[in-house]
Amino acid sequence: MTDNQTLRELYARKSVRAFTDEPVTPEEQDAILEAAFQAPTAGNQQLYTILNITDPALRQTLADLCDHQPMITKAPFCLVFLADCRRWPRVFRAAGQEIRDPGPGDLLLAVADSCIAAQNAVTAAESLGIGSCYIGDVLENCEAMREALHLPAHVVPAAMLIFGRPTQQQKDLVKPTRFPREAIVCENVYRDRTEEELRADFAARAGGEYDFDTKIPPFCAFKYNSDFSKEMSRSAAVYLKDFTFGVE
Amino acid sequence: MTDNQTLRELYARKSVRAFTDEPVTPEEQDAILEAAFQAPTAGNQQLYTILNITDPALRQTLADLCDHQPMITKAPFCLVFLADCRRWPRVFRAAGQEIRDPGPGDLLLAVADSCIAAQNAVTAAESLGIGSCYIGDVLENCEAMREALHLPAHVVPAAMLIFGRPTQQQKDLVKPTRFPREAIVCENVYRDRTEEELRADFAARAGGEYDFDTKIPPFCAFKYNSDFSKEMSRSAAVYLKDFTFGVE
Repeated sequence: MTDNQTLRELYARKSVRAFTDEPVTPEEQDAILEAAFQAPTAGNQQLYTILNITDPALRQTLADLCDHQPMITKAPFCLVFLADCRRWPRVFRAAGQEIRDPGPGDLLLAVADSCIAAQNAVTAAESLGIGSCYIGDVLENCEAMREALHLPAHVVPAAMLIFGRPTQQQKDLVKPTRFPREAIVCENVYRDRTEEELRADFAARAGGEYDFDTKIPPFCAFKYNSDFSKEMSRSAAVYLKDFTFGVE
Repeated sequence: MTDNQTLRELYARKSVRAFTDEPVTPEEQDAILEAAFQAPTAGNQQLYTILNITDPALRQTLADLCDHQPMITKAPFCLVFLADCRRWPRVFRAAGQEIRDPGPGDLLLAVADSCIAAQNAVTAAESLGIGSCYIGDVLENCEAMREALHLPAHVVPAAMLIFGRPTQQQKDLVKPTRFPREAIVCENVYRDRTEEELRADFAARAGGEYDFDTKIPPFCAFKYNSDFSKEMSRSAAVYLKDFTFGVE
């Protein structure tokens, strides 16, 4: 038996970018946050801080900093998940311990912890009829983001989520198809897809024909060679400068 | 109404580190992988490759590389989620595009994508009565891990998961309590907990008294000042060397 309500919700969940005016109630917010807290977390450390963005002016700032997306101001509920490599060192120092500075391993572990918790929030919301959308752009504009959110060193945005009830137009959207399993899963060791296989993967995802040579260039220009994508790596590099352990 | 089957599963889920001999069936494996694929993913790009580790010798190697944890060899099902910053550049080049090398922003976005997908796999498994445990140590020992899993540049382990049905002893374990909400959630902007608040957070988590000055030092020695923790940051720094965009 591999069919149940939870699986159906996981399979059907799609991003929601337009919301009704209905609020996410305090009880629903609590249920969503509790799911985040109860997610698996390395050594029960909860290596994240969650910002609940309630201030309309700050929402507007975030919308501007995240590639000018007005849906961020309109969402009934908005959370920023910060990979927090600062709380535990402060705990350790409060207990009199001499410790090293956080390194890139600490950061990647905290980013994982943050995203695992964030996805539990998404799944909890979905079960309550509340849609959500990740805003990857939260990694951009390091300097302005640090100022807006009062981020100290070793605290890095890992994920931003907006929540609300989907409009009918959003409910009617078809969820984008994923790649076939063989495009994503390897047995035991990594293997490159051949160019022929890559083209077949896109055709399979499109459900038949896919004009690879016509469609990939504009997607590349929009997603990878774009200003926001370059800004994301510039900004991430600035955050990473504080995690220098082991770098020669 | 903030109580439903999905929420109950999210709240009750705890890590499982000892498994019965019962297999995770091919149908269950498919259901778990499908949940990973259907997770939110930036631009519908699925920025990950998933390795299904079926080879017993490779499982032994992974157990050795991941801080010598024998449960990795014994789990009925084992997946490694790789942040894959190589597939899409290969797609773009196959379509004749000139592109930059992947940068740290691409890596952090792919790590997020990987962990979001991994957590859907965890939730799907839980709904089927199958337990799971993350193995954070998969970030360690970069050089040997690359050789064992045939990882090219720009492909980085983000999460490892082992799955199986919990033994009765594991079912009987009490899930560790999380910190109180005020320890983790800030409204709008980041704020440090005072030392007094930090101490209160640990007492609240312990359900009453907590001997902070006695208990924190050994935890610090085990989790943060330990060899495996330092190795994780050394190893992560090696992976990061391939993502130099924007670093001066």
